[in-house]
Amino acid sequence: MIRPMPHHRKPEFRAILLEAREGLKKVFKTNNDIVILTASGTGAMEAAVGNLLSPETPALAVSAGKFGERWLEICSAFRIPCRAITKNYGEAASAEEIRQTIEQSPDTRALLIQGCETSTGTAHDLEAIGEMIRISFPEVLIVVDAITCVGSQPLETDAWGLDVVIGGSQKAFAIPPGLAFLSLSERAITTIKSNSTPRYYFDLLKEVEAQRGGQTALTPAVSLVIALNEALREILNQGLDRVMDEVELMAQCTREGVLAMGFSLVSSVPAPAVTAFYPPSSISAAAIIQKLQERFGIIVAGGQGDLKGKILRIGHLGYFDLIDVLSVLSALEICLLELGSKIELGSGIGAAMRRIARPPKPAVS
Amino acid sequence: MIRPMPHHRKPEFRAILLEAREGLKKVFKTNNDIVILTASGTGAMEAAVGNLLSPETPALAVSAGKFGERWLEICSAFRIPCRAITKNYGEAASAEEIRQTIEQSPDTRALLIQGCETSTGTAHDLEAIGEMIRISFPEVLIVVDAITCVGSQPLETDAWGLDVVIGGSQKAFAIPPGLAFLSLSERAITTIKSNSTPRYYFDLLKEVEAQRGGQTALTPAVSLVIALNEALREILNQGLDRVMDEVELMAQCTREGVLAMGFSLVSSVPAPAVTAFYPPSSISAAAIIQKLQERFGIIVAGGQGDLKGKILRIGHLGYFDLIDVLSVLSALEICLLELGSKIELGSGIGAAMRRIARPPKPAVS
Repeated sequence: MIRPMPHHRKPEFRAILLEAREGLKKVFKTNNDIVILTASGTGAMEAAVGNLLSPETPALAVSAGKFGERWLEICSAFRIPCRAITKNYGEAASAEEIRQTIEQSPDTRALLIQGCETSTGTAHDLEAIGEMIRISFPEVLIVVDAITCVGSQPLETDAWGLDVVIGGSQKAFAIPPGLAFLSLSERAITTIKSNSTPRYYFDLLKEVEAQRGGQTALTPAVSLVIALNEALREILNQGLDRVMDEVELMAQCTREGVLAMGFSLVSSVPAPAVTAFYPPSSISAAAIIQKLQERFGIIVAGGQGDLKGKILRIGHLGYFDLIDVLSVLSALEICLLELGSKIELGSGIGAAMRRIARPPKPAVS
Repeated sequence: MIRPMPHHRKPEFRAILLEAREGLKKVFKTNNDIVILTASGTGAMEAAVGNLLSPETPALAVSAGKFGERWLEICSAFRIPCRAITKNYGEAASAEEIRQTIEQSPDTRALLIQGCETSTGTAHDLEAIGEMIRISFPEVLIVVDAITCVGSQPLETDAWGLDVVIGGSQKAFAIPPGLAFLSLSERAITTIKSNSTPRYYFDLLKEVEAQRGGQTALTPAVSLVIALNEALREILNQGLDRVMDEVELMAQCTREGVLAMGFSLVSSVPAPAVTAFYPPSSISAAAIIQKLQERFGIIVAGGQGDLKGKILRIGHLGYFDLIDVLSVLSALEICLLELGSKIELGSGIGAAMRRIARPPKPAVS
């Protein structure tokens, strides 16, 4: 990222952009077009909504956390009618629930959903949902915020019929924030072509056309595209499956470790990308987060939205490995003890280590 | 940019964001609020148009090159009525022309203009234009795309009454693209509050509120904000006036050098940021650009928009100094000779060197 910047209209950058697009296609498991935007993931969510939908085409969003709520906020901002399946934080919507809801609202034109709801660490069964939609509602587009799940959780864009899949640079790709990605199916591109809602910076058709030729329609975040390309080389060199197996194992260790320490999981369908958990009733999440930082310099995330101040979250994406998981779990044990818990030291970390010693469970899919 | 990323919701990043905002205010010469967006400069242009204007509030754009045309494209995309003062490429609009046009269209609510039109290297006299608007049309907002002129050309946001001034990371700040900045006057903020056009990613009110507290409303391009802060420290350490004097001297040298070689300037009001020039009639711009790269590895820009293929452009912003100017001028002479020009070697570079040896002319203001 600190090399002299190639100019974004010159052949050197063109080769990098084209290679990064091909790498993204491998990670997204798609032959669809992929565009790279200079924006955070929310920009790509807005781009999907604004290019695909209009005040005349209602959507359905699954809202079970801060990022599900964001679909509703974006639709509301752009006056796109959007129904919601609202779940408690930590719950997932099933394919059957979604089927019933769309059946009652046959004018639904798109399903907006998270592959992993980051605020609760909850996975959606995109395979089952994709199959149901393709069979029962072939005219409904599936738009997936996969910002935290791409590269950490099985995701088959083409095989599962996902029309738009959104990723972001700062999650599994482990580079700084500032880039977002969207894969666009042929159906999605056809829909965009017939939709005349206003757009300029997030004009996906202009970007598709430019990026097929190795350019971007507007000036891209050059240093981040170069870093992305290197990150993709590394992921594909290691093997995507191996990277995801490692994330899954870290998640399983973390879950078994925190459960053995007396925490409880926020999610009834935990995603591999991030584990969210409630502290034992006698100790506050804020006190644990503060002690982890003071005693060990370890920064773990707290809650977002309705869960602010109530939970802890540990991510398993990017530059983290099993040793990091064991470190944070042992630090957690000591913090709990010092905060008055009657925890038996070694109980949580022991459970995690036993998970590592056993052959891994199959990944959630 | 390659340090481990601080989390964007933690105190370390908060301090950096606040310092960068204060630094930007010094460079923009303003006490107005400044927001930092994760986007290219075009995103900030769209943000200004979309937040300030609506289909009920007509604008007036000065269109004299690719970036002036962009105002019209953005307004057209968002169905905002926008009249144009269209000038030939290389010409600037005077305060008097703008005054007459607004007088004929008293419903005009904003003037959209470039401080420097990058495609032609032409400066607008923002001081005179600002004064005229404040006196004659106090209800008209002035929105300036200053992406290439901030840090290279005198710019007094507050003293000249400029309501919105837009900058970008990759020009005078000499860091990679991916960030854009907007200063917003009180009047601009009041206008945004009363305007209900759709926005989400580019919601400037949400950003103003969050960034006053050292946060961004959405995930920012963390590595670029850190780099921006370092770049601002360097510019302010050197002194903004000294940085601008150097750019002005480079521009004067380049102009005198290319004129002495038989080129002609595109602009009748050349800006310090970039010099655009036509080749002598017998030689094509493309041939010169190609030869500069092949013989010397020097990359100079070509034309954009209507000037594509017709001109050369040399930038004087960021990591360039006088020695670079002398290098490119001597390389240009050799290329001209080899392409069949009867140039006397030393004529162009000599003119540039004589400019350096003389006390500098006062800067264009």
